[in-house]
Amino acid sequence: MDKTQESLAGIAEKFQRIRQFTSTICEGLQPDDYNAQPVLFVSPPKWHLAHTTWFFEEFILVRKAGRRYFNESYPYLFNSYYDLIGDRVTRDSRGTLTRPILKDILEYRSYVENEMLEYLSKTEADDDTRALVELGLNHEQQHQELLLTDIKFILGHNPLTPVFRKSQHLPSEKKVAPGIEVPGGVYKIGYDGEGFSFDNESGAHSVFLHDYRIDRDTVTNAEYIRFIHDNGYERPELWLADGWDWVKNHKINAPMYWQKKDDVYFRYGLNGLSRLNLLEPVSHVSFFEADAYARWKGKRLPTEFEWEVACRTQAELSASENFAENGHYEPVPHDQGAHFLGNVWEWTNSAYLPYPFYKKPEGAVGEYNGKFMINQMVLRGGSCATPKDHIRITYRNFFHPEERWQFSGIRLAEHIH
Amino acid sequence: MDKTQESLAGIAEKFQRIRQFTSTICEGLQPDDYNAQPVLFVSPPKWHLAHTTWFFEEFILVRKAGRRYFNESYPYLFNSYYDLIGDRVTRDSRGTLTRPILKDILEYRSYVENEMLEYLSKTEADDDTRALVELGLNHEQQHQELLLTDIKFILGHNPLTPVFRKSQHLPSEKKVAPGIEVPGGVYKIGYDGEGFSFDNESGAHSVFLHDYRIDRDTVTNAEYIRFIHDNGYERPELWLADGWDWVKNHKINAPMYWQKKDDVYFRYGLNGLSRLNLLEPVSHVSFFEADAYARWKGKRLPTEFEWEVACRTQAELSASENFAENGHYEPVPHDQGAHFLGNVWEWTNSAYLPYPFYKKPEGAVGEYNGKFMINQMVLRGGSCATPKDHIRITYRNFFHPEERWQFSGIRLAEHIH
Amino acid sequence: MDKTQESLAGIAEKFQRIRQFTSTICEGLQPDDYNAQPVLFVSPPKWHLAHTTWFFEEFILVRKAGRRYFNESYPYLFNSYYDLIGDRVTRDSRGTLTRPILKDILEYRSYVENEMLEYLSKTEADDDTRALVELGLNHEQQHQELLLTDIKFILGHNPLTPVFRKSQHLPSEKKVAPGIEVPGGVYKIGYDGEGFSFDNESGAHSVFLHDYRIDRDTVTNAEYIRFIHDNGYERPELWLADGWDWVKNHKINAPMYWQKKDDVYFRYGLNGLSRLNLLEPVSHVSFFEADAYARWKGKRLPTEFEWEVACRTQAELSASENFAENGHYEPVPHDQGAHFLGNVWEWTNSAYLPYPFYKKPEGAVGEYNGKFMINQMVLRGGSCATPKDHIRITYRNFFHPEERWQFSGIRLAEHIH
Amino acid sequence: MDKTQESLAGIAEKFQRIRQFTSTICEGLQPDDYNAQPVLFVSPPKWHLAHTTWFFEEFILVRKAGRRYFNESYPYLFNSYYDLIGDRVTRDSRGTLTRPILKDILEYRSYVENEMLEYLSKTEADDDTRALVELGLNHEQQHQELLLTDIKFILGHNPLTPVFRKSQHLPSEKKVAPGIEVPGGVYKIGYDGEGFSFDNESGAHSVFLHDYRIDRDTVTNAEYIRFIHDNGYERPELWLADGWDWVKNHKINAPMYWQKKDDVYFRYGLNGLSRLNLLEPVSHVSFFEADAYARWKGKRLPTEFEWEVACRTQAELSASENFAENGHYEPVPHDQGAHFLGNVWEWTNSAYLPYPFYKKPEGAVGEYNGKFMINQMVLRGGSCATPKDHIRITYRNFFHPEERWQFSGIRLAEHIH
Repeated sequence: MDKTQESLAGIAEKFQRIRQFTSTICEGLQPDDYNAQPVLFVSPPKWHLAHTTWFFEEFILVRKAGRRYFNESYPYLFNSYYDLIGDRVTRDSRGTLTRPILKDILEYRSYVENEMLEYLSKTEADDDTRALVELGLNHEQQHQELLLTDIKFILGHNPLTPVFRKSQHLPSEKKVAPGIEVPGGVYKIGYDGEGFSFDNESGAHSVFLHDYRIDRDTVTNAEYIRFIHDNGYERPELWLADGWDWVKNHKINAPMYWQKKDDVYFRYGLNGLSRLNLLEPVSHVSFFEADAYARWKGKRLPTEFEWEVACRTQAELSASENFAENGHYEPVPHDQGAHFLGNVWEWTNSAYLPYPFYKKPEGAVGEYNGKFMINQMVLRGGSCATPKDHIRITYRNFFHPEERWQFSGIRLAEHIH
Repeated sequence: MDKTQESLAGIAEKFQRIRQFTSTICEGLQPDDYNAQPVLFVSPPKWHLAHTTWFFEEFILVRKAGRRYFNESYPYLFNSYYDLIGDRVTRDSRGTLTRPILKDILEYRSYVENEMLEYLSKTEADDDTRALVELGLNHEQQHQELLLTDIKFILGHNPLTPVFRKSQHLPSEKKVAPGIEVPGGVYKIGYDGEGFSFDNESGAHSVFLHDYRIDRDTVTNAEYIRFIHDNGYERPELWLADGWDWVKNHKINAPMYWQKKDDVYFRYGLNGLSRLNLLEPVSHVSFFEADAYARWKGKRLPTEFEWEVACRTQAELSASENFAENGHYEPVPHDQGAHFLGNVWEWTNSAYLPYPFYKKPEGAVGEYNGKFMINQMVLRGGSCATPKDHIRITYRNFFHPEERWQFSGIRLAEHIH
Repeated sequence: MDKTQESLAGIAEKFQRIRQFTSTICEGLQPDDYNAQPVLFVSPPKWHLAHTTWFFEEFILVRKAGRRYFNESYPYLFNSYYDLIGDRVTRDSRGTLTRPILKDILEYRSYVENEMLEYLSKTEADDDTRALVELGLNHEQQHQELLLTDIKFILGHNPLTPVFRKSQHLPSEKKVAPGIEVPGGVYKIGYDGEGFSFDNESGAHSVFLHDYRIDRDTVTNAEYIRFIHDNGYERPELWLADGWDWVKNHKINAPMYWQKKDDVYFRYGLNGLSRLNLLEPVSHVSFFEADAYARWKGKRLPTEFEWEVACRTQAELSASENFAENGHYEPVPHDQGAHFLGNVWEWTNSAYLPYPFYKKPEGAVGEYNGKFMINQMVLRGGSCATPKDHIRITYRNFFHPEERWQFSGIRLAEHIH
Repeated sequence: MDKTQESLAGIAEKFQRIRQFTSTICEGLQPDDYNAQPVLFVSPPKWHLAHTTWFFEEFILVRKAGRRYFNESYPYLFNSYYDLIGDRVTRDSRGTLTRPILKDILEYRSYVENEMLEYLSKTEADDDTRALVELGLNHEQQHQELLLTDIKFILGHNPLTPVFRKSQHLPSEKKVAPGIEVPGGVYKIGYDGEGFSFDNESGAHSVFLHDYRIDRDTVTNAEYIRFIHDNGYERPELWLADGWDWVKNHKINAPMYWQKKDDVYFRYGLNGLSRLNLLEPVSHVSFFEADAYARWKGKRLPTEFEWEVACRTQAELSASENFAENGHYEPVPHDQGAHFLGNVWEWTNSAYLPYPFYKKPEGAVGEYNGKFMINQMVLRGGSCATPKDHIRITYRNFFHPEERWQFSGIRLAEHIH
């Protein structure tokens, strides 16, 4: 049995499992929730369901297998940003597409899944096809996370603060762990394994790091409240100029989803509105807030290289962390130990730029990552909304510095003199 | 049996009939359609269902009958613009309210209907209560029209151009009728009958009119196409300055819902996309377009006073016109005769301002009409989306001069030398 | 000597006098002031100087006398809004035109003045030419007022609050006069004399008025402060809906140019910053404020027809009022008597719409007034910045309801039962 | 004679020379030019003159020497962005400040210069004071460059395309030189000399570079035209996503200041409008354009570290380059040789971020650089508008990726396999 045939069997099972998980996530939705787009950067759940399906249809069924489209209008409706594929609905119209209706989209999903499974069972996959299927699955997993954070945005801005999923038992203890010290030198960065990786993390290369110390865990709500009480949101010297403008223009005075009632902080989570858990990692902070917090603390954010090297040094990194499959969908307090993966994404002080040997892939797939390499900052480590087998130590996520509807938190570092 | 008791029986029947018609209108909707708000001025169907219900709950059940709210959050969610009642969801958020779900809203409707019927059956209505119920019913009828035009906007901007309601047989002939000449003099304007009227049309008063001639019918699609072919949209001298800016900024070159394919005009209607019927009245034009068309034709729009006086002179005004109850939901070609009511609203060259004896009612009801008397133009006559027993000869509708998602058409007038 | 020749001599003198007054107004300017455009609706003084000159060059010297342009670029630079003449610099760029420099513009003015005087001295003017020269002079006078109000805006928003012109002695007394009662009936409206008038006020026609009472004088600062102290700016029921939005969005809490320091009101005037004179007419209020004030007072604004008819009834109307030629450039307190002309413009509750017999003139001159007849409200009576021989009882000024950088005040009226 | 006293003498001479050069730059201005602010990012020349003066007054005369302000309003008017110093005029109002007038500002400059010279002559400068004076002078030099590029923007957007300074003789030849190859390894980056440097370039540290090749000179107009002719501005695959939006939204199709007439390119320069010189370095391109050009060419932009290391390897780097003191104020064609300094700034593919050991200085001076370290890209090397003794090999300039009113050009690099 050669490697190609083995892989095809494996990939079909993986395809089914990942697609199924998208449906699992949607279990808490009401029919009314599927079509909302309260702000430009949030997409309606129905659109996520269709768009991830279109990706497989377009790149595998149509382009590789020569099938016709399920519906000739769908590429126009469900292409997200691929300029080389053709015209598309503008992003701000996604929430207005009441048709096709949800039932049609679910049929579309079934259709494409069946076609894909048939195709995978009959086809001797070339490298390119396998890479595209892998890309499609990772793409679906990225949208699983967005699905959760977009649902949170939709429900979290509803005055009724609905519960999406009942809360589960939470750890109630938290011990402070000492920082990790990393000696300076030349380190390898980036992915060079056998499995799937995105183009933006590939091309292993060397960087020089000076000695540094990095925290073993991320900042908690309790710690972040100290920053607020010390007037962190009112002191311009703690902020980048653009961050200070953002704070003033949007009257920011706490992380997203926090509400203050009679001097007590509550936070909206997918498990509803509840009193803030002080032991939880702070999340839904922007880069601007993470950066200001670090400055207030007399430290700084790590670069993405410092993060990656430190993460590799931790032998105990395990699969026991808080990922989307746990179904908790909110960060949890940590016990003692180093926690680099899961729970909350961590802002780094690295701009999202190409690695030295980066080459944008040819054609529409080349639009996947490369064209966004400007004006965004890198986040590392995955969150409680990230599927577990989607994350990697080398994984680079990226958002604009003011964005905070993802589960984004803070880890601190400092220079060792 | 005194008059009050008679009226109460009558009003309960009317209440049921009008509320039922709202449900009838919704029959063509899919669950997905209920929550969309593609532009600020369109409200989601679900919101219309809840808001019209809230009106009865707020002004009758809570304020008159002393009941508690069905849900304490609903006033916040479904108040439209009454500042004196309290805070409310901002207009641009209506489309983001996925909760309460449709099922809850339908329950809310049932609950309020039952409570209202019980209240109406048991209560000896004072004048104020009767007036409020009448206002609520007329309010519901206004929203029935908005429901239709908002549904049309939502579906008409969907790339799939869905059919909301199958087309019906249409008249195919149209004969030109001569204009109506009205001699100058002092005329009475405004409502002073016994039945319901809005505050904005009440307070009968006198105006002086000079001799004028007014068309017996509204402008057809065929006539409007001649304006387009004569480069009507490209000649600044035909337009008001703000209208010319609007044409250029929005690249306007035809009425809303028209599409040109291979030199043939199609138009989207609630019966789907079909070839333009040349005999139909032109509709979905803005005041700017109506005004430019009139100037191109060497005529002008009538004032609302000229319209009202001319309308009264027509003995044959009848109930046979095209209103919402017909279920056609699109304008139809006219036979010979004067047609002032139904089919399409007609722009006048009158700004929406108070009549001489106008007094804004006290309290929140006073916000119904009076506070909008600026920057809008008056339309008269009702349309194919207006409930028949809602319209009156004295009825004043009003929209901003660039708005055209209502069924708005053109009637011309001219001075007689 | 026939009438034509008489008129030509007269018009040359008038031409010189009016042009000279533009220079008189500019005496208080520093070179730095000539080029500023702090907001879109304010034009730089240098632009006013050039634009009024271009008007004579374009319509008389080039189009009538066949001369070449002083500079081929100037029509592009100094045309304001005439679409039929050709392209032009966008309005928002006027403040960026540092070239041509002031010296060049003053030469341009001299050149056109000399050419015009020569032309007027040698030409047997036809009716059309005389009408154009009259139009140009009235146009210049309109810009004299705008020059003053634009200068006030530029200097009044400078943190140094510079004095443009030293203050003069002011009356210090003010007696309340009873209102004027006007019986209902059919009245004549509009200009039908021999002299110059704008197209928008011509075409005398009849209107019917019901009995009304109108104040003999405009509202004072003292009276307006009572409105403020009664929380006038915080009560939505007093405002039109658009006005209420305007108040909240722009945090309006007093007329333009008022400043509050330690509970005392100051106001910036062209004579500098000084303590508010309570006897002065309130000025620099928007239509929204005028309308809210009237509602608070239990009265209403007059229509422009009521204003015009009442004004005609006042025998004592005289040339002794406060106009631009006085050089005071700010409103003054009134003695006992009726004051309809000068001091402050008065908002009416009439939308700016065409009179019944209105016909837009052919060609570019037709763009002067007619194309602005939408979304604006009429003001009557002239102000302290209006040249005395420019105003008429029939004169219709017009601005958008939120605008208030003109000297705009309030006169109240009410219905007589 | 100790070092401190020597330095003070030196610095007074330098102070006079640098301040004088600001006046030299202004020689070509007309009085009308001093106050214009055509877009938000351009400041009026008068403001530059006052702001650079305020810097010395605030940080030396007031804070060190204890003098009173020349005018109490000036700190409010001429502070640029120092939040810790207090309120200030908003940036968009700079062009509206017609007062203080130019004469007052020139007096302000004289006053501060005299006071400074007196202070420098009498004071035994401590390290902090000397550092502040040095900072003030470098600050003034930065504004000299901005003064030139802002003047160019003001005059270059005037329809009359005025000449600011007559053209001079230009080289007419250009020979292509081979690229420079740099072997991989650990390199030192940043300033650690004795003289002045900005905080953002200090803190020498190590970076690891892989083997690379970098061009000896910047891209010429001739080369850039080939990109345009190959439809560079119409192919989305060449652009970053934000860059492609920028191209479409602003209809970009050539560098700033280029005009196409009858298929021939002209460019506006401070020497007026002239036919494009094909041998000149392309300038006034945004980062987006530089990046797209590099992708089209199959190369990439260097990182700022690659640029700095390559620059150091060039023994022939000299003071003979094209800087502001030459008075040419436009880029010139290069002869054979490596040209890293002067002529045009060069975009790098490095985001503007803190160096590893960066510490923001305490107090208001700490706002000089650090707070802008987000969303900007680094440029290196100085331009024809940069004073010669202001530039350094380690100098880091920074602008947003869409900005191009500076003299910004392109140097290419590539990976060596």
